[in-house]
Amino acid sequence: MNIGIVGLGLIGGSLGLELRSLGHRVLGVSRREQTCELAVARKIVDDADVDMSLMATAEVVYICTPIAAIARAVELLIPHLSPTAIITDVGSVKMPVVEAIAPLWPNFVPAHPMAGTEESGLDAAVFNLFAGRSYVFTPVETTPFSALDTVEEIARALQAKVYRCTPQEHDRAVAWISHLPVIAAASLIDACTHEASPAVLDLAKKFASTGFRDTTRVGGGNPELGLMMAKYNRQELINSLCGYRDRLDWFITQIEQQNWDALSATLHHTHQTRPGFLTSQD
Amino acid sequence: MNIGIVGLGLIGGSLGLELRSLGHRVLGVSRREQTCELAVARKIVDDADVDMSLMATAEVVYICTPIAAIARAVELLIPHLSPTAIITDVGSVKMPVVEAIAPLWPNFVPAHPMAGTEESGLDAAVFNLFAGRSYVFTPVETTPFSALDTVEEIARALQAKVYRCTPQEHDRAVAWISHLPVIAAASLIDACTHEASPAVLDLAKKFASTGFRDTTRVGGGNPELGLMMAKYNRQELINSLCGYRDRLDWFITQIEQQNWDALSATLHHTHQTRPGFLTSQD
Repeated sequence: MNIGIVGLGLIGGSLGLELRSLGHRVLGVSRREQTCELAVARKIVDDADVDMSLMATAEVVYICTPIAAIARAVELLIPHLSPTAIITDVGSVKMPVVEAIAPLWPNFVPAHPMAGTEESGLDAAVFNLFAGRSYVFTPVETTPFSALDTVEEIARALQAKVYRCTPQEHDRAVAWISHLPVIAAASLIDACTHEASPAVLDLAKKFASTGFRDTTRVGGGNPELGLMMAKYNRQELINSLCGYRDRLDWFITQIEQQNWDALSATLHHTHQTRPGFLTSQD
Repeated sequence: MNIGIVGLGLIGGSLGLELRSLGHRVLGVSRREQTCELAVARKIVDDADVDMSLMATAEVVYICTPIAAIARAVELLIPHLSPTAIITDVGSVKMPVVEAIAPLWPNFVPAHPMAGTEESGLDAAVFNLFAGRSYVFTPVETTPFSALDTVEEIARALQAKVYRCTPQEHDRAVAWISHLPVIAAASLIDACTHEASPAVLDLAKKFASTGFRDTTRVGGGNPELGLMMAKYNRQELINSLCGYRDRLDWFITQIEQQNWDALSATLHHTHQTRPGFLTSQD
């Protein structure tokens, strides 16, 4: 199959490596000439160009740009595309992408491969990025079954675990387990730095250990990713943040009122339920 | 030196292993006959007994029981102790321990070795548990310098990093970086399970990945430890929880009002400040 990739970063580059190894012919488009040259030299793509006209022969095109650039990329792509070509994306929020792209191109398969590393950019591209990870498809009424089947089949060839749900369900689920943790962890770092006493803050920094490291990791990550999820999944993130604040208030009340039995029961509950969220992990 | 250990669990057992290897004679007391036999058989202690009279020749005694049992252990220990013996403890909250023990025995050195694993009990005892970890001493006015020096010297022999501060400063610092993260993480697990839609909760469980795993780890840990820190460090924990809730409210407001510049600046701030809390780690 001729497969196009627009945006040669961590996801686009890793897709290229994998799809070529599966025998597909991979065509890459990047805004930067240098990235195109590098992608060809490293055998991540068979051919690359800064011009979308390279996509004329593509049967499936993966849009792997940041979310903010997806709509513009599709607008630039469409004039060069065969009418039967499938467009799919890898955006981590689905509602705004579906709303922007579905009206532009009927043969569109909205999707979110839940894969990534701490790194970004073409240099971070690796083999096996998708193996064992969730790859979520969020078709809408206008999504053709055949197009959905084609892209899901490729996802399975990448050894990803394929799921299907609505864009709304996707955005709500990732708000809880991906976007809410980022803001909760960032608030934790931020709160500690607001400690009034410099002596205590200095000790806190010295004493912080693996518990603090793990709890705050995603809150100290790439600021652009945190901003992106807040902008594009704003309402679902606010809903989960308010739900979180309610439960935090509940914990504070129990500790203030010394309701140790209630606190103990809930800590046993969180101890028991957490493994249910980790079943998909290695 | 003759060194006593009261309470042969993870910390007491690991101390025994290490102190014997440094050439000390180690005497252990446990409530359970079986634990005493096991500790001798595994060469964790030289001698062990369920009776405190074994401590008659001890020059330093480490109280390694859970916090709730420290005062009672010291009361049982004192009738058997040489008047020059030093008592020290390993409790993870210092104010309540100092208030209970300092009036009972002047030669008392309150301390907190910040070491541990996910495991507990004598079976979890390991060599090198303290190497490179913080060992915090929180002397009060009545703590004799010579006693403090003796126990700090042993901590350095364990290759721990020795710090000194007041009990209040210790309890406030650990509230921020150790106890607050437990309740914040437990609230996060608890909030997700309150999601109203079973379909979304099911997807959330499937999609949860390393970010959710790390952010919630300490909130799904041993419920008894969470309860203990809430009971014994209650006021400092409430202060840090309220400070955390204030910052969380701030984040929610910025996202609601779409103040993206302010949100971006703060996410850059948390990205930059987090490494300052991780300098003591491997």
